[in-house]
Amino acid sequence: MRAEELIRKKRDAGALTREEIFFLIGEHTRGAVPDYQMSAWLMAVYWRGMTPEETADLTEAMLRSGETLDLSALPGKKVDKHSTGGVGDKTSLVVAPVAAAAGVVVPMISGRGLGHTGGTLDKLEAIPGFNVRLSLPDFRRALGEVGCALIGQTAEIAPADRKLYALRDVTATVESIPLITASILSKKLAEGIDALVLDVKVGSGAFMKSQASARQLAESMRAIGTRMGKRVVALLTNMDQPLGRAVGNALEVAEAVETLKGGGPEDFRALCRELTAWMLVLGGAAAKVEETRKRFDELIHNGAAAKKFQEIIARQGGDPRVVDDPGRLPEARQRKDFLAPGGGYLAQMDAESLGRAAMALGAGRARVEDAIDPAVGLIVHKQVGDRVEPKEPLATLCFNDDGMLAEAQGRLEGAFTLASAPPPPASLILDTLA
Amino acid sequence: MRAEELIRKKRDAGALTREEIFFLIGEHTRGAVPDYQMSAWLMAVYWRGMTPEETADLTEAMLRSGETLDLSALPGKKVDKHSTGGVGDKTSLVVAPVAAAAGVVVPMISGRGLGHTGGTLDKLEAIPGFNVRLSLPDFRRALGEVGCALIGQTAEIAPADRKLYALRDVTATVESIPLITASILSKKLAEGIDALVLDVKVGSGAFMKSQASARQLAESMRAIGTRMGKRVVALLTNMDQPLGRAVGNALEVAEAVETLKGGGPEDFRALCRELTAWMLVLGGAAAKVEETRKRFDELIHNGAAAKKFQEIIARQGGDPRVVDDPGRLPEARQRKDFLAPGGGYLAQMDAESLGRAAMALGAGRARVEDAIDPAVGLIVHKQVGDRVEPKEPLATLCFNDDGMLAEAQGRLEGAFTLASAPPPPASLILDTLA
Repeated sequence: MRAEELIRKKRDAGALTREEIFFLIGEHTRGAVPDYQMSAWLMAVYWRGMTPEETADLTEAMLRSGETLDLSALPGKKVDKHSTGGVGDKTSLVVAPVAAAAGVVVPMISGRGLGHTGGTLDKLEAIPGFNVRLSLPDFRRALGEVGCALIGQTAEIAPADRKLYALRDVTATVESIPLITASILSKKLAEGIDALVLDVKVGSGAFMKSQASARQLAESMRAIGTRMGKRVVALLTNMDQPLGRAVGNALEVAEAVETLKGGGPEDFRALCRELTAWMLVLGGAAAKVEETRKRFDELIHNGAAAKKFQEIIARQGGDPRVVDDPGRLPEARQRKDFLAPGGGYLAQMDAESLGRAAMALGAGRARVEDAIDPAVGLIVHKQVGDRVEPKEPLATLCFNDDGMLAEAQGRLEGAFTLASAPPPPASLILDTLA
Repeated sequence: MRAEELIRKKRDAGALTREEIFFLIGEHTRGAVPDYQMSAWLMAVYWRGMTPEETADLTEAMLRSGETLDLSALPGKKVDKHSTGGVGDKTSLVVAPVAAAAGVVVPMISGRGLGHTGGTLDKLEAIPGFNVRLSLPDFRRALGEVGCALIGQTAEIAPADRKLYALRDVTATVESIPLITASILSKKLAEGIDALVLDVKVGSGAFMKSQASARQLAESMRAIGTRMGKRVVALLTNMDQPLGRAVGNALEVAEAVETLKGGGPEDFRALCRELTAWMLVLGGAAAKVEETRKRFDELIHNGAAAKKFQEIIARQGGDPRVVDDPGRLPEARQRKDFLAPGGGYLAQMDAESLGRAAMALGAGRARVEDAIDPAVGLIVHKQVGDRVEPKEPLATLCFNDDGMLAEAQGRLEGAFTLASAPPPPASLILDTLA
């Protein structure tokens, strides 16, 4: 079997066999097929697509390139949640503890932020002492003890995906439904899950700009998950504005803690409830989502959710007192309001620009090797549809370095569109594929 | 400017600017853009194509990546001929000396054979002592002295093309009209020519299997050549059977010498006449191809062509006596006839299989680093349409190594199709784009 022939086959719209896909992924991972052949193949896949069989084989080849966790010894269903990434998306910090408090095992392996979207690992590391680098055996022990653990991808998990993703990132081959499907599912299936709730973001702050492409991805993930014996429920959710009010790592942890204690912004709480409710349905806590939604509210109000988050933090070496006292989180030294130039209704927000503004303050990274500042970010005071008075603060910038302020303010300048009438109301949850 | 953005632009069917193309080619040639980005871009080009502007810019970027010859100090027009490659195609050995004998300057930089097609350099090296590695200054001197020189691509000529071609070869991105156009033209324009006659082969033994794709390539070459101030005449010629009778390096030199002296197979002579006639028209020897065809015959019959070939050989260190005495060429130790299994008419020949049979005997190379045996090859005794008696020899294998015979014979087995009636006659010259 020669790589060049497999590139040619895909180029000519052929479907690769299971053996061919395993050959290509296996040989690329061990360095026998060079990156320059793989990237030509990736562009051919971007162009020609993949059949569901091919996508499933690719997922499995990537999954099998590394270790997979066997969590069958732990009682209960293992369910994870995955988001395709947005601005202000800190749902993991809420849904994981609530689902674990309800008795579902949540083995969550997350990523770091890159570009305008944040990453769960960076948010967790804003909690003093929190260690996201558990070994796989320790990860399994933590799951047994607490019911939930949140770690970063280890070298053992899907090395094929890590190598392939780095290549896609620099060859304009990221935005391919089968490649995204295989990348996400291979990592998630390595966690030993039974089911997955997928939050596919749509809009200006998301990877998928249109509902049609988001739906395609959701359907692909469901189809491939099902083929591989896993239940996948997908929610299409709006990312035309940041989720919640906080954008920036410690700020988002504080907002998540507030939400776990019964407060928090309404939109964020609503999405956390919906995602958790589906996790509980897939986890067997109840048959109907109407019941599990109520269960979410109960676990928040009876304090079990916040207590579970404290247990998770403590088990991973962090300071659990941040839950009772968010003042223990790192805080930026300076604050500056960004004021509305005029009055009216907030007609539109460019979530990507807001994400980039937070990034400019040091909350995110442009390159993988960049360091981030956990304390900095934005608090957004208005949501689309809100009335805005002239000179009213639209957002507050929280920063440590004056030199970074100008770029962030520049990003904000074009991010808010005011109009004389309110826009038609938009749903946060656009669709549920269950 | 970032390579990834240029890949994305082409992926999304955009046209790259001149600056973008020069950036990509320049940075790739100096190693700053890695092969894995270039190959993704090449696949995107394969998919999306290029506008004539882009193709011209690509040609020029590749041309400018190295040295270009300025032959304006030499009197007369400089005209070259390029063939897209076939089996038994030794026309360069005839057209170059005849055109030079007519007063046209022929600066021919050729390639080696790879796969089932032969290369002019390998054929020339079958002549004892012939040196195809002249430096560019010596090449220019030889052109001044003899009017023709035939050398291999030097490191100074279009290094961008050499690097890109090696990459295309292993990433299934060879068969792209704009990429082929730029690759051929950049090398040919570096020779300092005024005009080019292009022989685009069509059929089972050629790179272009259909007349439609051959015509597309011819039209692209003509359009880009014209944009760059060069006249290009293209002939579409049949490669459903080998050209002439000889396939293999020394055997082909012998056939070319025979043709230069007024003999040789009729099909081969006819094509050489036609190609030379167009070179002479472009070179200004006469306005009409009817006249230059006659000039070809005169130069053969008055001995000027053979004499010019002797001059070329002598100037490049070879033994000019091979023209008078082809017995001085290397000769294979053994010969074996390949017999017709039955009788009938030769309805079809698979030229590629015949090329691969010669290659199996050692006449060609599967990889660039393979050594070749100049003496071995095939002599084909029949042409499509000929009457064949049972057990009559269809071809003679000329070989040195018994161990190589079986594979060659195997290749021949499927190469000849006999039928009870003769096939409709086919033209050798399918079309002329002048």
